[in-house]
Amino acid sequence: MPDIVKIAIDAMGGENSPKKIIDGIEISLKSNNKNFFYLYGDKDLLDNEISKKKIIQNCCETINAEDIISDDESPLAGAKKSKNTSMWKAIESLKEKKADISLSAGNTGALLIISRLLLNTIKGINKPALAALWPNQNNMNVVLDLGANIECTERNLIDFACMGSALFKSLFESDRPKIALLNVGLEEYKGNEILKKTFSILKSSKIKNFDFCGYIEGNHIMDGDVDVIVTDGFTGNIALKTAEGTANFISKNIKKSLNILSMLLSYSSLKKFRNKLDPRKYNGAIFLGLQSPVVKSHGSTDAVGFANSISVCHKIVKGNLIEKIESNLITVDA
Amino acid sequence: MPDIVKIAIDAMGGENSPKKIIDGIEISLKSNNKNFFYLYGDKDLLDNEISKKKIIQNCCETINAEDIISDDESPLAGAKKSKNTSMWKAIESLKEKKADISLSAGNTGALLIISRLLLNTIKGINKPALAALWPNQNNMNVVLDLGANIECTERNLIDFACMGSALFKSLFESDRPKIALLNVGLEEYKGNEILKKTFSILKSSKIKNFDFCGYIEGNHIMDGDVDVIVTDGFTGNIALKTAEGTANFISKNIKKSLNILSMLLSYSSLKKFRNKLDPRKYNGAIFLGLQSPVVKSHGSTDAVGFANSISVCHKIVKGNLIEKIESNLITVDA
Repeated sequence: MPDIVKIAIDAMGGENSPKKIIDGIEISLKSNNKNFFYLYGDKDLLDNEISKKKIIQNCCETINAEDIISDDESPLAGAKKSKNTSMWKAIESLKEKKADISLSAGNTGALLIISRLLLNTIKGINKPALAALWPNQNNMNVVLDLGANIECTERNLIDFACMGSALFKSLFESDRPKIALLNVGLEEYKGNEILKKTFSILKSSKIKNFDFCGYIEGNHIMDGDVDVIVTDGFTGNIALKTAEGTANFISKNIKKSLNILSMLLSYSSLKKFRNKLDPRKYNGAIFLGLQSPVVKSHGSTDAVGFANSISVCHKIVKGNLIEKIESNLITVDA
Repeated sequence: MPDIVKIAIDAMGGENSPKKIIDGIEISLKSNNKNFFYLYGDKDLLDNEISKKKIIQNCCETINAEDIISDDESPLAGAKKSKNTSMWKAIESLKEKKADISLSAGNTGALLIISRLLLNTIKGINKPALAALWPNQNNMNVVLDLGANIECTERNLIDFACMGSALFKSLFESDRPKIALLNVGLEEYKGNEILKKTFSILKSSKIKNFDFCGYIEGNHIMDGDVDVIVTDGFTGNIALKTAEGTANFISKNIKKSLNILSMLLSYSSLKKFRNKLDPRKYNGAIFLGLQSPVVKSHGSTDAVGFANSISVCHKIVKGNLIEKIESNLITVDA
């Protein structure tokens, strides 16, 4: 594993790009200078932004890409637009082994399609999945799939368990992450047929690399008792967005409730709370199962959020995610 | 419609019953004395509790039921236990047209099974569904199904739209509730095949009694832009519990963050906030689609929560829920 992580960035994707991207790189370099960035986009624009920031001039290369995929394009139209989009070229650099990992804040659907078009899946994996970090009472969970696969078989869910546990191990120090399947109850007879089959296979398999803890219900996702929560992409997407909506609803109403004086009095402790739940900390969904990892930053995040995504990219490569997925896979007898 | 609503209560179900039940009835009578209660359970125990409360002595009748279904029994074992459980007898009174509606804080699974065993479905309804009230920025949504049907067809989802809109109309003053289907995106091509078929049928149907607004994503459930959100029981259960878990997580962390002084300073406004989100206000899932409605109160709620469930029962009967469901159904061409 080389000391320097090479990150291919779609520098035009998402709101306020490429300024946000360059600012994010600057922030990230202040805490970690072991990254090198290939930046794909409007070269003149990028070079101009970079000329203002000495700190990043020696650790990046800009490559011109004439086209941009916008957020409001349909994923398929965006992906098929041209081979000169900043997103296409960034992913292509993984295929060419120029970079270790790719990062984009652009159109999620197009990113998934281009990644699948250009990159092979890891041997043994049928469908790649989109994973995210979710705050819990102790630290963070990995939850997957979050929308890449609307319908899943038991084989897919088992792959997700293997990939999710590999991701958790790459990001956090853990030898045997705890894995659970998201369901409507804890009893074995609960849920649909695919969940029951997955449960039965995981229960009877000799798994060396993670602990299978059975089912978990939606109200316990954030308890911190398990590390990886596995579900199909439809359910995972609804769960993640419902949690976001609930958090927004409560924050809005809390803000209305607290008066200025009490806000000031609680400033430092509320700051700690906000910091714990800051969505920018959980920014970055990870597309797992391809021969190189692809990270998706939230389109509307700011430079701090983007810097956090860069940190996730660094950890994934240094944590040998792909090797960990490969070694996890062979240990499940299914 | 008679002036007095007759409510059959399983007085032994849930934590701290029957004391909580009797206390809840007492609270409810202070704001509404247009109910009469048939209380099923240990008659001696019930009569003893009631003897302490003059206010309820003239508006209830106690009927002995020797057995109780406990919360930790499997739903099927509980339902099949005997015909002398307080839950069975309460539902049976609907079949006999003695009561208008039934209410229980006991074992949810057993309640659904017994209700389906004893009561016919409304003509035209294939599967009954469990609906709940969900707070939003304006007031409340109806969300269904929440777990009665793990797998659903497009016909089921259309029935849920009809039943949910009838429930919304019964509880709130609304001529044309707005209905949306819970999905992973707003575009017509998003989601699974069943959702796409449901969307297409609802879009092309001449619907007289509600407005079909297309898809809604999880992060917009609480925005207050739609009144009824329709989904299959698996997804609805996960969404509801994930929202509960998120709300609990945030409340716990907020409590840790605020110091005593700021809590005191914000007491009245925080109280307003807590009041808006008080889970006791949303207590009471409604089992819709049977010839009499059955309401499930949360097992762990207190007397105030139980009183709110009684109020929901009253509104449902006075709002002519069953008639509204029947008249909604015939207007959808599917």
